Amino acid sequence: MLILGLDPSLSCTGWGVIRAEGSRIVHVANGQVKTDPAAPMAARLDHLHAAVAAVIGAHGPDRAACEEVFANKNPQSTLKLAQARGAVLAACGSAGLDVHEHAARLVKKALVGTGAAEKAQVQAMLKVLLPGVRVEGADAADALAVAIADAHLGRDIR
Amino acid sequence: MLILGLDPSLSCTGWGVIRAEGSRIVHVANGQVKTDPAAPMAARLDHLHAAVAAVIGAHGPDRAACEEVFANKNPQSTLKLAQARGAVLAACGSAGLDVHEHAARLVKKALVGTGAAEKAQVQAMLKVLLPGVRVEGADAADALAVAIADAHLGRDIR
Repeated sequence: MLILGLDPSLSCTGWGVIRAEGSRIVHVANGQVKTDPAAPMAARLDHLHAAVAAVIGAHGPDRAACEEVFANKNPQSTLKLAQARGAVLAACGSAGLDVHEHAARLVKKALVGTGAAEKAQVQAMLKVLLPGVRVEGADAADALAVAIADAHLGRDIR
Repeated sequence: MLILGLDPSLSCTGWGVIRAEGSRIVHVANGQVKTDPAAPMAARLDHLHAAVAAVIGAHGPDRAACEEVFANKNPQSTLKLAQARGAVLAACGSAGLDVHEHAARLVKKALVGTGAAEKAQVQAMLKVLLPGVRVEGADAADALAVAIADAHLGRDIR
């Protein structure tokens, strides 16, 4: 089972592909897609859509997963995040992928054992679970974390 | 100048294409894209993306326009709307289209002369501006209204 984890955002979308073999997790690839803040919104969203479609084309995941989105205190930030998420999810839909959605709390619990874990604890656990793997950045790390959590959990976004 | 007006939403995205010849507005086409509420989110967003890409491919607009999005009182509604918008804008970006964004108030003002106009007044003015045109529904009407407003105004979404 090949799982694509996604951490969508307008400025930098993280992605990570893992293989789940029973209880064993094997790293396949990870990366980040950055968009040009000076470019028009439509071009930035197309960049995210095309880049995620290319990742899916290259790795052929069986399913995808991302964190549950929540409304931020800053409505403009929430709108930008949700627009980026729309472009990224559309690319998944185009490939016929199911996308599972997990609460941030459950992702932390799946990795560290507690939903109240700090970001640093999650990153430390990633190093244990994926030894020797070069993770491109914090967003790619979040994407790998949600992919690993998805190996245990699973629910479609509707 | 061929202008594509868009009124993105997850359940039903309206679109309308007009030709602006100086101060004259000519209707080209309009329609609505409905998605299946029972389908997974990623599939619905891909449906919107693909349908808008097809409209752009069929009509070859020079630019596109939509209303400014604002954070709704219901955060879940805002997130759904913004995700739909992300998929629709990504399709515009894929075609290299500039997308202009106009405040709802300015769209009303451009059509009816006052930003406080009721929806019914906008629809009545549409019938005057585009005589004899069969409009597919309320969302297509909103899309035509924003296209007509864009013939007068213009600002990129960033």
